[in-house]
Amino acid sequence: MNTKFSLPVPALVSVLEGKQIWPPPVWLMRQAGRYLPEYREIRKTAGSFWAMCMSPDLATEITLQPVRRFDFDAAIIFSDILVIPYALGQAVRFDDGIGPVLDQYPGYDGLGEDPGLWKQRLSPVYQALEQTRKALSSTKALIGFAGAPWTLAAYMLEGRGSVDQRAAKLFGYSNRQEFSRLLNRLADAVASHLIWQLEHGADVVQLFDSWAGGLPDQEFCDWVIGPTAKIVATVRDVVPGARMIGFPRAATQNQYQLYASETGVNCVGIDTANSISWAISTLGGRIAIQGNLDPIALIAGGDALDDAIDRILSAGRGHSLIFNLGHGVLQET
Amino acid sequence: MNTKFSLPVPALVSVLEGKQIWPPPVWLMRQAGRYLPEYREIRKTAGSFWAMCMSPDLATEITLQPVRRFDFDAAIIFSDILVIPYALGQAVRFDDGIGPVLDQYPGYDGLGEDPGLWKQRLSPVYQALEQTRKALSSTKALIGFAGAPWTLAAYMLEGRGSVDQRAAKLFGYSNRQEFSRLLNRLADAVASHLIWQLEHGADVVQLFDSWAGGLPDQEFCDWVIGPTAKIVATVRDVVPGARMIGFPRAATQNQYQLYASETGVNCVGIDTANSISWAISTLGGRIAIQGNLDPIALIAGGDALDDAIDRILSAGRGHSLIFNLGHGVLQET
Repeated sequence: MNTKFSLPVPALVSVLEGKQIWPPPVWLMRQAGRYLPEYREIRKTAGSFWAMCMSPDLATEITLQPVRRFDFDAAIIFSDILVIPYALGQAVRFDDGIGPVLDQYPGYDGLGEDPGLWKQRLSPVYQALEQTRKALSSTKALIGFAGAPWTLAAYMLEGRGSVDQRAAKLFGYSNRQEFSRLLNRLADAVASHLIWQLEHGADVVQLFDSWAGGLPDQEFCDWVIGPTAKIVATVRDVVPGARMIGFPRAATQNQYQLYASETGVNCVGIDTANSISWAISTLGGRIAIQGNLDPIALIAGGDALDDAIDRILSAGRGHSLIFNLGHGVLQET
Repeated sequence: MNTKFSLPVPALVSVLEGKQIWPPPVWLMRQAGRYLPEYREIRKTAGSFWAMCMSPDLATEITLQPVRRFDFDAAIIFSDILVIPYALGQAVRFDDGIGPVLDQYPGYDGLGEDPGLWKQRLSPVYQALEQTRKALSSTKALIGFAGAPWTLAAYMLEGRGSVDQRAAKLFGYSNRQEFSRLLNRLADAVASHLIWQLEHGADVVQLFDSWAGGLPDQEFCDWVIGPTAKIVATVRDVVPGARMIGFPRAATQNQYQLYASETGVNCVGIDTANSISWAISTLGGRIAIQGNLDPIALIAGGDALDDAIDRILSAGRGHSLIFNLGHGVLQET
């Protein structure tokens, strides 16, 4: 048999190739983190969240922790979406209790445009991926990721997280062309980062557009779909067949449909408010579906958790489904 | 002619009765507030935001300010959704830069259940409505309002605003029956407050469910649609034909459709991410539509603002439309 020596294909990869695997592969966004005692142990001595991201050995260990403990079907590399602003020269620090704080946006001309320098600054991520892939069972998928341009631009212009992305929207509304240039530069950097992750051991990459919610349709097309489609095409030019998951969190249902049909991703992540049955019936014909358990149901446990899981599984049976959350794991879990 | 002595009907009221008025009546959520110099003048000497809400004379003056300056088609009474927890005995204070902070949730049995006491505590709102209605042209509508039970419960359990309503969701998931009792009590208090507002001069009332976004369908039905339908029915039992606007901000499009068909409101407020053309085509057959200019476009001005207004007006022409924002006016405006 000519398949004698072939490695097993991780279930998550099969789903992204359109297969229906049952029970579906499971992983959780932010599955490595503060809810795990073994993570908190490392955190105590590491100095900072950023130091952990930028140490290949620590990032590898933290990436593997939840897979060891829960036997998840995938590991997602321990890193942060704000490594891209950092690579472009806008420094980031993480303050306890506040979250990320970025240096002032340096302006378009202040952003580094040398891919060699981006790669050098991001090299700890690629080292961690290589090490993790070696340590991880071949039945498990390794996921790389990046923030999507709109979400990154929001952080870069606001300087921190914000409920309504006011600074980025105001900039975009007032300087549409200049804002598109910024998104284009970010798309270049994000595509490069995803390609390098795929070249260093990632089997799959996910784009997080955590702040896709709240955009009118026109801006959703210009600022979310356009840059995402460009990234997918650029990555596939270099890595043919690259498997990509997109997560336009809190987009409207019409916007989700456009995203699924126009960007080229293999799978769409569904947030908590949308139902998997809606996602399967409107998007599931052409694309795999990932989601969407409420992270707060995971804390509540009991009947609420059982019911929520049942709803996802019964809606997803017979389709290409990846079981996940609708947002990241919370530290209280 | 037997119509000789009839008062003119405010355009906004006509729209809520199913008529198509062009150009559409205009008002803005949070149209009274810090972006107005004349408001800031009063704020300087009033002591606190809460003191302004609870002074009938100040609330009347502040309510009238934006109508004087911009000739809006409606005035919305200057008050706050958190007067309901206050009426039930959970005190609220407003700290500059933090927003509302509530005393600890007293438990269901700690909530006041005497409508006489609710009415006494809320009487400044009714006085302000009476005074405002007298001072306001009969061509202008006066809008009363209340927070919807889910959004109020989120504030009461969290103690302040929150991005994911974690405390309320956790309580609801873990103690479904107890949470429904709380929502029922809130629905009673909200219905009473809306009835009393309608009896004291309000032509129209709006229910703000500012945190309706992020709920799975089951919880949206149980925690948003159910209590809202109960409130609408209770109000109409006492005030037949009461005109009511509902605003389930950031609900999914499927949820918006259920809300429009199941609650009994005359009009649905549309948030920024949804398009008016979508709202008109899916909800507009049976109900008036209000919305949905991005408050940040209002700050940006210029072409972005012109284009956004054009999109709303061209989608809404020939339908029952109220021009408004998709969220409240921002103080930078």
